[in-house]
Amino acid sequence: MAKSESKEVEILKEYAIGIDVGGTGTKFGVVNHRGDISNRGEITSTGYKDINEFIDELYKQLQPAIKSVGGIEFIKGMGVGAPNGNYYNGTIEYAPNLEWKGIIPIAKLITDKFNKPCTLTNDANAAAIGEMMYGAARGMKDFIMITLGTGVGSGIVANGHLIYGHDGFAGELGHTIIRPGGRLHWGTGARGSLETYTSATGISITAKEIIDERVGEETLLRDIQHEKITSKRVYEAAVKGDKIANEVFQFTGKILGEALANFVMFSSPEAIVLFGGVCKAGKLLLDPVKENMEKNLLPIFQNKVKLIFSELKESDAAILGASALVWETKTDAKTESEDYELKKKKAMKKI
Amino acid sequence: MAKSESKEVEILKEYAIGIDVGGTGTKFGVVNHRGDISNRGEITSTGYKDINEFIDELYKQLQPAIKSVGGIEFIKGMGVGAPNGNYYNGTIEYAPNLEWKGIIPIAKLITDKFNKPCTLTNDANAAAIGEMMYGAARGMKDFIMITLGTGVGSGIVANGHLIYGHDGFAGELGHTIIRPGGRLHWGTGARGSLETYTSATGISITAKEIIDERVGEETLLRDIQHEKITSKRVYEAAVKGDKIANEVFQFTGKILGEALANFVMFSSPEAIVLFGGVCKAGKLLLDPVKENMEKNLLPIFQNKVKLIFSELKESDAAILGASALVWETKTDAKTESEDYELKKKKAMKKI
Repeated sequence: MAKSESKEVEILKEYAIGIDVGGTGTKFGVVNHRGDISNRGEITSTGYKDINEFIDELYKQLQPAIKSVGGIEFIKGMGVGAPNGNYYNGTIEYAPNLEWKGIIPIAKLITDKFNKPCTLTNDANAAAIGEMMYGAARGMKDFIMITLGTGVGSGIVANGHLIYGHDGFAGELGHTIIRPGGRLHWGTGARGSLETYTSATGISITAKEIIDERVGEETLLRDIQHEKITSKRVYEAAVKGDKIANEVFQFTGKILGEALANFVMFSSPEAIVLFGGVCKAGKLLLDPVKENMEKNLLPIFQNKVKLIFSELKESDAAILGASALVWETKTDAKTESEDYELKKKKAMKKI
Repeated sequence: MAKSESKEVEILKEYAIGIDVGGTGTKFGVVNHRGDISNRGEITSTGYKDINEFIDELYKQLQPAIKSVGGIEFIKGMGVGAPNGNYYNGTIEYAPNLEWKGIIPIAKLITDKFNKPCTLTNDANAAAIGEMMYGAARGMKDFIMITLGTGVGSGIVANGHLIYGHDGFAGELGHTIIRPGGRLHWGTGARGSLETYTSATGISITAKEIIDERVGEETLLRDIQHEKITSKRVYEAAVKGDKIANEVFQFTGKILGEALANFVMFSSPEAIVLFGGVCKAGKLLLDPVKENMEKNLLPIFQNKVKLIFSELKESDAAILGASALVWETKTDAKTESEDYELKKKKAMKKI
């Protein structure tokens, strides 16, 4: 076998484990250099005595996946995306939507348990990396990813690199104030942040506000109990032609469009990639967002920025992005050489 | 002479020309690798038949400076900071405050005239680079520079590099909307942009608005004709204890503080460097800015960001930053080797 061929085979046999820690579930998969995910799995993120019990469960559930690619020596490392994940420290810090409070050194705990290097980043950043390597932002050096789910997250790429900021916490665009003195945020207590309007939660609040204001006006949404009005149900009413439901998306699009215009004047991205559950609204959301973004841009920025939806399945983006961190990781020299010996032995057996 | 010594002498004898194109005047200087500026000069930016006449004048006025460092062969290149300057194209594009309209290929014109590589960037970006290399942001990899002058400009550095965006126009933070539907911008027609409130022009508008609202209230500013109320005069009244003048700075600081909080949640900088004429207000501005910035930040960002004034003289920052672009420029191989031959000849003579 020629030397370059054998190098190629070696790379093809190298895998990364991508882990996406969410508020309720933690998804994982084994990923190769081409971005193919195999051996997907999921465990709950809640109900553990402490973080160590969670790590133990993760370790247990990942064993079949690791075995199926030939053993731990074929895994280059682990990448994790998590809310409030700090790339520099490998810690999850004060994540409001997770049960583990305070500062959790999750990268170290995983490294110790699996004896593999582990790199952590914020969940929205992981999704942005996934999109850059395998999705709608392939090949782009400047783009912003906005995740519109229960909350609003973001990952910002400039000059081909994710912006982490000096402390690892950059990219909290959901908490920027877009309506000073506006809607109260249920968690942070701030008024008028983007998240209060354009998250799934925000959309349902807008719907309830409009319904309550227009007492006499007919709407399909009036048949639903207030606490059961979700962004999904507003969407369903809107596609049936419901006027108030359509207004909710017009308003949401206006706020998001204005915010995106501000973001464009900050980093002048080639594209803004929208991602997350709220994107299922499609054109109903995209049209007013685009109109209001363009209207609020300086002429030099107009009609330049691509406004697109993610091309990846929601859980895949973060798993892929987390795994992509592994290829960039400098592995510990000792671990690497041990692995190399093991790989060589196995390869010899096969020949 | 040892080889390394001779290399050092060669570097010490190498200079860059930094040029800061402003709306009224164009300043220049010859800069060495240590950031020492010599042979400063200035020409007007206005009153030329066309851009070529301006370039001719610049060429003429720079000759004594070039001669004084030993001749053009000791100049590595030219760096220019200009409003709406585009780093990628070397063009000034539709600059509202310059007399040359449309797209001006200034870098190419300078290269052709001087037979030296020329790199262009936006004036605020040039100032940010100057600050990073020789000023308050020395050694920082993540900071934002805000210039508060007649207008509001910005230069953003993340991961140690200036953010240019996909088209070279990133960093127009003065045009981000901080009060939707708010004050009308005299040039862009947008409502509520940061520049309408926190530029020198914005400060004088705020003063006039408050004076007109409070007809009965005494203020030193009422003795000044409306059109003669400038931010400088508001400052002078404020230091004398004038209540309305102090309120003007409180309001300006509140708006700027809120905007900075949004910027911090975007790129999480180590510092925000304030720069430009309005900074002469000192603590009068800084205190309310800091208070309102902190108040609007998520807890994870609070009490972390340094809020500082520039350490460079206003004209120096852009000249230094523009010259710094030169050290990064890859010079054309042919020109470089020609220069080398010339240098060698001169050096031989001296020996």
